[in-house]
Amino acid sequence: MKQFLAYLFFCFTLHGQNDSTFLRLIHDEALVKGHAHHNLRSLCKDVGSRLSGSASAEMAVVWSENKMKSYGFDKVYLQEIMVPHWERGTQEGAWSRDEKGNIRKLNILALGGSISTNGKLNASIVEFSSLAQLKEASPAQIKGKIVFLNEPMSQAFIQTFKAYGACYPIRGDGAVEASKKGAVAIVIRSLAIPLDDFPHTGSMRYDESVAKIPAAALSTNDCEWLSKELKSGKMTLTMEMNCQNFPDIKSYNIICEMTGTEKPKDIITFGGHIDSWDAGEGAHDDGAGVIHNLEAIRILQSLKYKPKHTLRCVFFMNEENGNKGGLTYASWAKERGENQIAAIESDRGGFSPRGFDVDGNDEQLQLLRSFNTLFKPYDLLHFEKGFGGVDITPLKNVYEGIPLFGLVTDSQRYFDFHHAESDVFENVNKRELELGAAAVASLVYLLDKNL
Amino acid sequence: MKQFLAYLFFCFTLHGQNDSTFLRLIHDEALVKGHAHHNLRSLCKDVGSRLSGSASAEMAVVWSENKMKSYGFDKVYLQEIMVPHWERGTQEGAWSRDEKGNIRKLNILALGGSISTNGKLNASIVEFSSLAQLKEASPAQIKGKIVFLNEPMSQAFIQTFKAYGACYPIRGDGAVEASKKGAVAIVIRSLAIPLDDFPHTGSMRYDESVAKIPAAALSTNDCEWLSKELKSGKMTLTMEMNCQNFPDIKSYNIICEMTGTEKPKDIITFGGHIDSWDAGEGAHDDGAGVIHNLEAIRILQSLKYKPKHTLRCVFFMNEENGNKGGLTYASWAKERGENQIAAIESDRGGFSPRGFDVDGNDEQLQLLRSFNTLFKPYDLLHFEKGFGGVDITPLKNVYEGIPLFGLVTDSQRYFDFHHAESDVFENVNKRELELGAAAVASLVYLLDKNL
Repeated sequence: MKQFLAYLFFCFTLHGQNDSTFLRLIHDEALVKGHAHHNLRSLCKDVGSRLSGSASAEMAVVWSENKMKSYGFDKVYLQEIMVPHWERGTQEGAWSRDEKGNIRKLNILALGGSISTNGKLNASIVEFSSLAQLKEASPAQIKGKIVFLNEPMSQAFIQTFKAYGACYPIRGDGAVEASKKGAVAIVIRSLAIPLDDFPHTGSMRYDESVAKIPAAALSTNDCEWLSKELKSGKMTLTMEMNCQNFPDIKSYNIICEMTGTEKPKDIITFGGHIDSWDAGEGAHDDGAGVIHNLEAIRILQSLKYKPKHTLRCVFFMNEENGNKGGLTYASWAKERGENQIAAIESDRGGFSPRGFDVDGNDEQLQLLRSFNTLFKPYDLLHFEKGFGGVDITPLKNVYEGIPLFGLVTDSQRYFDFHHAESDVFENVNKRELELGAAAVASLVYLLDKNL
Repeated sequence: MKQFLAYLFFCFTLHGQNDSTFLRLIHDEALVKGHAHHNLRSLCKDVGSRLSGSASAEMAVVWSENKMKSYGFDKVYLQEIMVPHWERGTQEGAWSRDEKGNIRKLNILALGGSISTNGKLNASIVEFSSLAQLKEASPAQIKGKIVFLNEPMSQAFIQTFKAYGACYPIRGDGAVEASKKGAVAIVIRSLAIPLDDFPHTGSMRYDESVAKIPAAALSTNDCEWLSKELKSGKMTLTMEMNCQNFPDIKSYNIICEMTGTEKPKDIITFGGHIDSWDAGEGAHDDGAGVIHNLEAIRILQSLKYKPKHTLRCVFFMNEENGNKGGLTYASWAKERGENQIAAIESDRGGFSPRGFDVDGNDEQLQLLRSFNTLFKPYDLLHFEKGFGGVDITPLKNVYEGIPLFGLVTDSQRYFDFHHAESDVFENVNKRELELGAAAVASLVYLLDKNL
């Protein structure tokens, strides 16, 4: 194999243009000599979850800078940003009680940004099967109660991200809508596909014009049970959560670069987000994404690729609850007068890659599709218009016409783990992760050669 | 949703030709009201593993017939076949010993069809890194020893089935090649992708011209360890396996049908294999496959589809160690003068479907590719020439020119579980399974309409 690789590499350097050979070298490096699985294990186990503002997020910055430096890229540096700082408390519990006094402990997680319950909060439960139904309800039904918003993600969508998009408002807007009608707290059904016991957290928002109320997510199994119980009688819920918001705090994006040999001032940005929710280890969301991108630049360097443009890998901080990393990066790049020519993001988990979406025009889609035959041997067959990624989207506002590419992975299992305790290293398959890294490296290479 | 489905169904029955609408109905039924996950759980938990000739395989026949009857298909019947009968023993162990006398228990599984060790077997170990290396070795190196054939599956292939195909001869031929040189037993590296503690069994063969020797598979972790230890000194292995071959025994293929309304004598066969190895629950191999096919015909019936041709779902027995189900089915069909016009198999696990391979000519590939735009909304993008499946391949020998279609799934995790204790229901994702069933139902429908 070693001799074969040396031969392939010889062919490549001799002929220069042999893209299909180079994509094969990228995939061999990722699958046979890859660092992705080892690095993801270290990020998940040596650092753990990485919520913005936490000590573990700070450890993740150190881990990332050390790791990038260990590979000897042309540049490694931190970019200072200010991020929100919310902490889950030491107390977090919910118990239902029926009319006979039977008590049952339920599996909850406070939503990110929620206020505390200020000790014990006890109220009767009123269920709604959708946000629309809650919006239509009369305040008399709701005043003084805890709203239980039990809207399931639709199973009918083929891509689960579409089901998530359709259901997302119950988490984002549920507290505001419930509070408008006088609710004292809200418990939402976890935005999750399977029926299991894991609550799934995530960001929510308050509106300064209505009272802030505590908000939590309940596991899907508990939602099914509670909804059934509520059909046969009234129930109360006792909640206790001492989570807390703190002032914004300093943090960093972490960046490494290979300097362009022909157009060093033209920059291709590619990255994922280093922060995660505090449940689990942020293995798929978005440990896999940052590792995809780190591995992509490591592979290109290890193959001694000399990029035309500057290749910049960015670990964005704070995608989950503020997107301060992405916003700061875009305005910083613009202020410095940088010429950003394309951006790629991986933030859909470490599952088998299927291709790329492009947030761009017809011509940019055609460019992406011109790589079809090169990607086909790697089972990358999906090339469509779509979303790039949360972290790179701010670049669109300051670089008109920049194409944004999003790595598309198989989405079926993503919402089994998303924002939950189950998003751990063990639930990432080694080969699926490695193939994602190879896909990103391949697109970076092809864009660099063709832009 | 209910009203929407009723509307779609109305459109379909009105216009007849609305294939894209019907594929959407199929997917809604599979994802929203599917039986696949529940049925696979029952097959795995109420029956368990299903090795040909075992009591559990007999229970699987009863389970399958009952399940098919419960759906009220036009016909449900059993087809008698004779199958090999091999049983793993009550004793199965292996212990290595180094020159200092240190002992370590290793994780082994006898290969299917292996003879017993007749009590304790003790001999020194000689390692080979490939079957080719074993074939080149001198008998003096091997005589009286236990061959340790430590050839890993290549990580470089993109589709893992190609790596399996390349490595398969070490399991199939290893015992014969080792015995030719005087080995007393053989232990092969499990045909598995990950490094873990599960040995993976599977079929092997003897050659009547050389002595039969016991054969077992060792977990990949144990192979790595043993190989390292052998570099620093001699090792012996003590094995005990009381597995046994018995005379062939009666068993059955299980079959259900929807009778064709226009050409009832033209038959489209689709199926998977109901037998499995005895480790684990045969959840991916091939519980998922039989469930895909059962669910496909159930969905078509529940949508009140009236097929042009007769649709026949077959649960084949004995794919794993003899293929007697597939062989008997093909010759039985031919003898009855049946007109078999196409066949489909699912035997690549319950992972996300990606499309279909066709074992057929250019015209048949073109027919398959003519469905491209209909399949695209379901992320089914792979339509190539390839393998149909072991069970349906014998049809080719008696029906010249019959196209054989194989469901292609994402193969990255298949060899984590294949033929091992880890091939259990819990390792099958509900949506991935359901999408496979919908893909099979869609192809059955499209073939029925277009053939």
